[in-house]
Amino acid sequence: MVERRPLITLTTDFGEADYYVPAMKGVIHTINPAAEVIDLTHLIPPHDIYAAAFTLVCCYKDFPRGTVHLVVVDPGVGSSRRPIMVTAGDYHFVGPDNGVFSYIYQREPSSRVVHLTAEHYFRSPVSNTFHGRDIFAPCAAYTSKLVDWQKMGEEISDPVRFNTPTPVVLSDKAIRGHVIHIDRFGNIITNITRNELTDERIQAGARVRIGSREAARLLSYFAEANKDELFAYFGSADFLELAVPRGSAARLIEARRGIEVEVVIGQ
Amino acid sequence: MVERRPLITLTTDFGEADYYVPAMKGVIHTINPAAEVIDLTHLIPPHDIYAAAFTLVCCYKDFPRGTVHLVVVDPGVGSSRRPIMVTAGDYHFVGPDNGVFSYIYQREPSSRVVHLTAEHYFRSPVSNTFHGRDIFAPCAAYTSKLVDWQKMGEEISDPVRFNTPTPVVLSDKAIRGHVIHIDRFGNIITNITRNELTDERIQAGARVRIGSREAARLLSYFAEANKDELFAYFGSADFLELAVPRGSAARLIEARRGIEVEVVIGQ
Amino acid sequence: MVERRPLITLTTDFGEADYYVPAMKGVIHTINPAAEVIDLTHLIPPHDIYAAAFTLVCCYKDFPRGTVHLVVVDPGVGSSRRPIMVTAGDYHFVGPDNGVFSYIYQREPSSRVVHLTAEHYFRSPVSNTFHGRDIFAPCAAYTSKLVDWQKMGEEISDPVRFNTPTPVVLSDKAIRGHVIHIDRFGNIITNITRNELTDERIQAGARVRIGSREAARLLSYFAEANKDELFAYFGSADFLELAVPRGSAARLIEARRGIEVEVVIGQ
Repeated sequence: MVERRPLITLTTDFGEADYYVPAMKGVIHTINPAAEVIDLTHLIPPHDIYAAAFTLVCCYKDFPRGTVHLVVVDPGVGSSRRPIMVTAGDYHFVGPDNGVFSYIYQREPSSRVVHLTAEHYFRSPVSNTFHGRDIFAPCAAYTSKLVDWQKMGEEISDPVRFNTPTPVVLSDKAIRGHVIHIDRFGNIITNITRNELTDERIQAGARVRIGSREAARLLSYFAEANKDELFAYFGSADFLELAVPRGSAARLIEARRGIEVEVVIGQ
Repeated sequence: MVERRPLITLTTDFGEADYYVPAMKGVIHTINPAAEVIDLTHLIPPHDIYAAAFTLVCCYKDFPRGTVHLVVVDPGVGSSRRPIMVTAGDYHFVGPDNGVFSYIYQREPSSRVVHLTAEHYFRSPVSNTFHGRDIFAPCAAYTSKLVDWQKMGEEISDPVRFNTPTPVVLSDKAIRGHVIHIDRFGNIITNITRNELTDERIQAGARVRIGSREAARLLSYFAEANKDELFAYFGSADFLELAVPRGSAARLIEARRGIEVEVVIGQ
Repeated sequence: MVERRPLITLTTDFGEADYYVPAMKGVIHTINPAAEVIDLTHLIPPHDIYAAAFTLVCCYKDFPRGTVHLVVVDPGVGSSRRPIMVTAGDYHFVGPDNGVFSYIYQREPSSRVVHLTAEHYFRSPVSNTFHGRDIFAPCAAYTSKLVDWQKMGEEISDPVRFNTPTPVVLSDKAIRGHVIHIDRFGNIITNITRNELTDERIQAGARVRIGSREAARLLSYFAEANKDELFAYFGSADFLELAVPRGSAARLIEARRGIEVEVVIGQ
């Protein structure tokens, strides 16, 4: 039987060129030598809590139970925004109370949230500009050492949630959603799921309108698409996506996050 | 005696901004908590199996015996292209059967290849767009746990190979090769090795022509070059390269992968 | 009691797209299977030893005692520049003798430096262009295995130091410093510390002039700043910095490393 090392993932907007990320890793390893730190990404656009929330929700469950997910996208650092830890079933989440865990609260209704106030778990002194290193990394490291999360502060019931965009079923013939992400390949990810675009509706025939374009077919495989065809499919995070085979759908459409998409059902 | 952790390397074209790479790492750690995952690179240009093949062949042997090298550059995901595992002497390679292991087959004539079909080793359900997470990462993780690779599918004898460009010795006076890579410093890496440009030929005098330029000298050290001199040398992966000290040879020449180079022997 | 794995950090200008970084990691894991390698950054601008020196000094102390910090920014590779190891209190530093450890010598007056000459610790053969893989990585790996650093070469007393820019207190009313770094957010980091800009001087009122602009206030928190206000603060590495809330101070000012800043004291 192999002993599992405690895992801590990092999601930040710090980029990969500065000392911010390694400083956090150094702090974690100093507190918990057994921990293993895994980068989710450090290329979240600066201050973009929506992108961080999306990235986290797409893969947090792929990690083993007990993993601590640490997120530092923190435009309000040093203000009155609270540092928090979320315990949601099998995982812990540490970061600023700015809405970055909104999707987690949605997916994990049993989430409990603690306002991190137990300063003896913080790095000392706490800088005013880098809570990632001085509050979040230490609290994540202690949590990975199985320090009881309830000892780190008081439970709160009013964590900040942003209004996660929700797809709307307008009628039996139409669903309206939004673009929530564009990936490296130029694939366009919408917030529409199989909850809205049910098998029944798919069988009635579904086309996806975006900008002045239309994806006429909902396919299962990239390989089914014709050259240069804009098509729709359910992606690996179970969202409806749009792509062009070996091309960039985002560039074709000049898509960006937030624009509307409409699924039209029936012939 | 320290116990060696099983190593798995990752080479992808996923970039570092999306959830694709961490999802694969999460899956690996869930299956094999003892595994250590090391990034080769995730910046392979999208769909560029040649670049992936080159990067892999330049460093796979620097890793300890038993390392599993996982490559996901997979433009044909979801089509009929086969998922495969290559066992080549001391290493395992997991990825799509699209030619990305062509250099490995060349260097390791004892390579044996299995078509991965044993679905109980896959993540369930298998998505149609992300076999990296759902097939390749799990199979690599089980291999790193010493699951017998022959249990993962049937051996095949016809893996896809791309035509790896081969340098040609035209005469005692000329060798023709091609640019196979350009690195961050703008150094130009060709496919010519000491097999073609032998010591004897070097002693007869060798100049390298590329585009409208010529590297008049084959040097041993960067420090021997004059300011702004285009020169040739054998690089750390044993290929003939071209560089300008503290400058970019690729920018000087407007070189790109695929263009021809010619070595002219003798005075 | 958890056993601490020996840590080795990597700071290079190799970028993340080539085989250079993973080759070094492979060599390290081959020599010391117990080692854990942590990326500081690989995005140091090519050949920029000043940027490497800055990044290292900002976070080396956040790592546990005994960590080996490996730096490969090595424009003189293959020339007569010496490979060295620095032992400074609780840490080891391995890299080229080109000044990249200048800040370390300043901060750690007890530093001792060895010229790495014991070739049996090198990878064989040593290439002329990649001492990172062939000299520095192996020596770091052996050091992490507690091989006595004094066995790796002869101690030297004349390591190369670059002239680290020093802030100057011109009078009770003025301090002159320089920009030493610009981070991903466009924050401008100067070399002025609390040693020059003392509490007393701060209380007398301090404004920071840079280019044609002035930061009229020295704040403790980003949140205290007004929209679009250029302000000064002491950053997480204890240097005086300039920022614009949720904007880029560097873009506003067209700042770059090396330009002058002046702190004006008093009303």
